[in-house]
Amino acid sequence: MHMLAEQILQKDIRALARAITYVENDHEDKLALMSDLYPATGKARCIGITGAPGAGKSTFVNRLIDYLRSLDLRVAVCAIDPTSPFSGGAILGDRVRMAKHFTDPKVFIRSMGTRGSLGGLSRTTKDVIKIMDAFGFDVILIETVGVGQSELDIMKVADTTAVVVTPGSGDVIQVFKAGIMEIADLFVINKADLPGVGPLHAQINAMLDLAKDHEAWRPPVKRVSAAKNEGIAEFWAACEAHAAYLLESGEGMKRRRRNKEREILEIIQDEASRRIEQFFIEEKEHIAASSLDPYTLAARLVDKWFQNQEKEIMQKNGEL
Amino acid sequence: MHMLAEQILQKDIRALARAITYVENDHEDKLALMSDLYPATGKARCIGITGAPGAGKSTFVNRLIDYLRSLDLRVAVCAIDPTSPFSGGAILGDRVRMAKHFTDPKVFIRSMGTRGSLGGLSRTTKDVIKIMDAFGFDVILIETVGVGQSELDIMKVADTTAVVVTPGSGDVIQVFKAGIMEIADLFVINKADLPGVGPLHAQINAMLDLAKDHEAWRPPVKRVSAAKNEGIAEFWAACEAHAAYLLESGEGMKRRRRNKEREILEIIQDEASRRIEQFFIEEKEHIAASSLDPYTLAARLVDKWFQNQEKEIMQKNGEL
Repeated sequence: MHMLAEQILQKDIRALARAITYVENDHEDKLALMSDLYPATGKARCIGITGAPGAGKSTFVNRLIDYLRSLDLRVAVCAIDPTSPFSGGAILGDRVRMAKHFTDPKVFIRSMGTRGSLGGLSRTTKDVIKIMDAFGFDVILIETVGVGQSELDIMKVADTTAVVVTPGSGDVIQVFKAGIMEIADLFVINKADLPGVGPLHAQINAMLDLAKDHEAWRPPVKRVSAAKNEGIAEFWAACEAHAAYLLESGEGMKRRRRNKEREILEIIQDEASRRIEQFFIEEKEHIAASSLDPYTLAARLVDKWFQNQEKEIMQKNGEL
Repeated sequence: MHMLAEQILQKDIRALARAITYVENDHEDKLALMSDLYPATGKARCIGITGAPGAGKSTFVNRLIDYLRSLDLRVAVCAIDPTSPFSGGAILGDRVRMAKHFTDPKVFIRSMGTRGSLGGLSRTTKDVIKIMDAFGFDVILIETVGVGQSELDIMKVADTTAVVVTPGSGDVIQVFKAGIMEIADLFVINKADLPGVGPLHAQINAMLDLAKDHEAWRPPVKRVSAAKNEGIAEFWAACEAHAAYLLESGEGMKRRRRNKEREILEIIQDEASRRIEQFFIEEKEHIAASSLDPYTLAARLVDKWFQNQEKEIMQKNGEL
């Protein structure tokens, strides 16, 4: 077993940080490390929290950490900074507010940025969540601004996804348009002391009435004031109810199976992509000298790699 | 030659639209089509235009189209809608303002969204630009909101990239932070009739002083009012000056060579990714039944595909 994996399973927090750096830097031991940690994963509860900038997600997450700590649960936070050229800065700043948890050894907070994720934000984040899971955190909070496809993609690994909206922001229509509806298990109206809560609540309900697939689980709408620390326990109760639903309906198992399938495909794609890049660098001159146009060249190369091998590969189950 | 490619080279506008749909839908003929069009590419001038939402890019692009048409140039616009869950809607709305150009056969406008780009936004957009180029447009305007890595990535195919900022928006610091500096060949201060233009101009200059690599070409700063149709000719003159610099310094050739290299790698990656997905679907059950963890499984599969083939492949230059 990889030494770092061993240390992580022994709850060595510095090993945890180092492993995350391995993943971010696409270290050559990454695959071996992840492979060693894999059997220890699957125990943590993953809660996704998404919403527009300014919805107060950071404050909300901060309060939620306090609450989960009061239940003596170990909490990890994976905050995704989309590194938007025009709004990225503000989000990292919010992290500062979480500083008070830095002294608590049972809280671990990590910001993920697009920059410095060689393997792509989505792939890197999912590996980081796996490492946190293997380490033994009870709850992993995944916080995103939900600005892009890769953030939405990351949210799919959450067991429960909460969408945070605020009165007067007009977010609801955007949520509906953007297909966030499809991943929302729970709505949080934050800043619920502001005017306009009633109409917003009604809007969400109308939206839920329009959407199908809510026979088994209709996403509850929870009113919260993160600033005043109100409604946090009720939010967590709703998460617990959703967990119970996932368990009883078998939907949880289905989701995890679907996630695992997608994950295997992603890992294979990621590995192939690394190898192709390596090959490309080594053969750069040959490739540049080819008289073929890039499209034909690509088709020929890929044909050669895959030639006659696909059918055989999976049948040799002994080796795989 | 693919029939669609033939029609495009004969400037059939409906074939152009159909080819773009092929690319967006990852049609099975895509590679053959692109391969046929490839020899006809490389003639268009690509101008990238990026900036924060609200900077007035659409109005600016609209004015620029008018101006380029007055020079009797054929203009294509490729507008990238980042489909942000929270801001995507507004951008598509702006397109409506371009409606007046729809009757001009020498203007072609296409919006690209993340949704409906099966091969990924960046790859799809680059292929669309290639199709527009092969069709025979003199100028291709690539407009993005620059919210993510893939938008930044797309801008790299532009010969000249202009960054649009406005007084009082505080964008400049973000531009600097986000690495947009590295791709900016030109700054446009839009809404230059608003107060605060002087300080903004000074800020950009200070930023340019800080950045290195400006010995050969220091990005000029152009003041424009798109709303009042002022400064557009001066902007285009700056683009022409940049084109002359690219030609004389050899930097233009270097960029195009770099882009071509990156492009070949991307096309290979894209093709491999398609094939892997196909393989995965066919072998889903075998894969799910494997006793290996996903990381080990991925490493073994990729090893098998690439086994001993890399070195041989490129040496058989006759076949490639």
